[in-house]
Amino acid sequence: MAKWYIGIDLGGTFTKTCLMDDAGRSKDIIQRPTPTEKGGPAVIEAMGAGGLEILATHALSSRDVAGVGIGSPGPLDMAKGVVLSAPNIPGLGGLPMRDRVGQIIGAKAVLENDANAAGFGEYVAGTGAGLASLVLLTIGTGIGSGIILDGQILHGANGVGGEAGHILVEAGGELCGCGQHGCLERYCSATYLALWAKTQIEQRRWKGPLADVLGAKGELDARDVNEARQAGDALAAEAWHRAIRYLAMGCITICRLLDPNVIALAGGMTKAGDDLMVPLREEFLKMHWTFAAPRTQLTIAKLGGDAGAIGAAALARHLLG
Amino acid sequence: MAKWYIGIDLGGTFTKTCLMDDAGRSKDIIQRPTPTEKGGPAVIEAMGAGGLEILATHALSSRDVAGVGIGSPGPLDMAKGVVLSAPNIPGLGGLPMRDRVGQIIGAKAVLENDANAAGFGEYVAGTGAGLASLVLLTIGTGIGSGIILDGQILHGANGVGGEAGHILVEAGGELCGCGQHGCLERYCSATYLALWAKTQIEQRRWKGPLADVLGAKGELDARDVNEARQAGDALAAEAWHRAIRYLAMGCITICRLLDPNVIALAGGMTKAGDDLMVPLREEFLKMHWTFAAPRTQLTIAKLGGDAGAIGAAALARHLLG
Repeated sequence: MAKWYIGIDLGGTFTKTCLMDDAGRSKDIIQRPTPTEKGGPAVIEAMGAGGLEILATHALSSRDVAGVGIGSPGPLDMAKGVVLSAPNIPGLGGLPMRDRVGQIIGAKAVLENDANAAGFGEYVAGTGAGLASLVLLTIGTGIGSGIILDGQILHGANGVGGEAGHILVEAGGELCGCGQHGCLERYCSATYLALWAKTQIEQRRWKGPLADVLGAKGELDARDVNEARQAGDALAAEAWHRAIRYLAMGCITICRLLDPNVIALAGGMTKAGDDLMVPLREEFLKMHWTFAAPRTQLTIAKLGGDAGAIGAAALARHLLG
Repeated sequence: MAKWYIGIDLGGTFTKTCLMDDAGRSKDIIQRPTPTEKGGPAVIEAMGAGGLEILATHALSSRDVAGVGIGSPGPLDMAKGVVLSAPNIPGLGGLPMRDRVGQIIGAKAVLENDANAAGFGEYVAGTGAGLASLVLLTIGTGIGSGIILDGQILHGANGVGGEAGHILVEAGGELCGCGQHGCLERYCSATYLALWAKTQIEQRRWKGPLADVLGAKGELDARDVNEARQAGDALAAEAWHRAIRYLAMGCITICRLLDPNVIALAGGMTKAGDDLMVPLREEFLKMHWTFAAPRTQLTIAKLGGDAGAIGAAALARHLLG
């Protein structure tokens, strides 16, 4: 009898569920709203229900499932299968997520950090397929990252490794939400890029397309900055390239320590496509050492928003298959 | 019959040779001058001769040797066992070092980067013994590093990983010998610490103990800076703490990506002992995020200058035993 795997990617707004076959191919992915407002236990029940739903759709049952993988926001206690706290999903902390979801679906389950699960997905089925190593940077509100070296997720000795968003790029720099000063995330996440532009407009009493958008909307996002940049707004161009320079700096540091085959970028910022990647590669090459030619590829991740669910299923296959 | 291993640590001035028993214990280490002035082929012959010498001292012969490990300055072609170039040992580039040394000693040999070999030594027999992971930073003229995760040396996909001296700590910073701007090495190696102090004395027309030493000697080293700091020289204190702040910043970045059990420091700078470690730990704790308590230990390496030879022997045991 063929074995099947379920991968669940829990998000604050949506939960995605992937059905993977024994050969590691994603056969289907469904997305359902996360009942965040109903609290932690309801969220966990809904995760299990999503797994049962995708099985039923494909005329499969618990007996066909060899393992369930879960990618969840953290921090986690992986050994116990428990989410310690999830800022965007109140009431989830301390609940036995792994075991309860496994019980509902009727199979063994594994729990992993969502950024690591996405990194693993991109590694096995995206831009990392067939390669030795990959670093996935998900650039949105913050910067999430998953580091996969020789097929293994880098967790670190104390379970807090693989956090590329919090490498330091500015000595004594701005305060990050993590308590550090000068984190990569604080200088080039989509949120902070837009925040920096807004602050500069106010401080410099700047006039131009971006100031007009800010006046009209009362706030800015990274896309506004890029569009104003395209419309010739010099401050928008400054904000955009400033963030990209810091991102390139982070990529250099990642290469010096880890030397991965690929640094793949995902998240909202990558919607900018070449507007992000062309100057990023340019800065990266400019900053690169001359000891050896640059070999690490900087690229947009292939799996997009499906990386987490596919990665969670692939992890179940890897660990429970 | 018991198996023995030879480890050779090639340096520009001295070559150390370690004899290791089958249980991984270092039985003896000898040090001989490297005949750098006689050229590459003579250096390689001397490496072999050192191996034969330590065997003879212990009444052993080629038949007793299960493997030879070599730690060499690089860059290397590990697959071919060839040093591509070694700036401090002219004429070594392109010679079949691994195979020739193995041939002289009469056993299979492996070639590794010297910083990685030292990291492996410190991992198996020093501060990393019994732990999952260690990063060794050797702080002297530059900053060498070896990263060991779960018993494996981190080489990277293209063989250029594990270079913590060249992570970026200052955006658009000073030019490093590697061609990058703002490298860790450029801000806190012993050499650059002293160079910065010298430059500041000249630029600020500074008077005081450190300026007196510079006047008398015509140059400065890191120890001069620390001694002047102890004598109350404010500029010396500034130089010393500036370097330590950057080093702490580098340690934070290493923790965020790799989360090792230990960051061990070696090299000339560690002769300062607590004058280095106390402020370093203080800065590290100040810069550390609040997501999770600091668990990575910052400590002075145990094996000192023997780490390379012990690590090379341990690698031979690991790979050829």
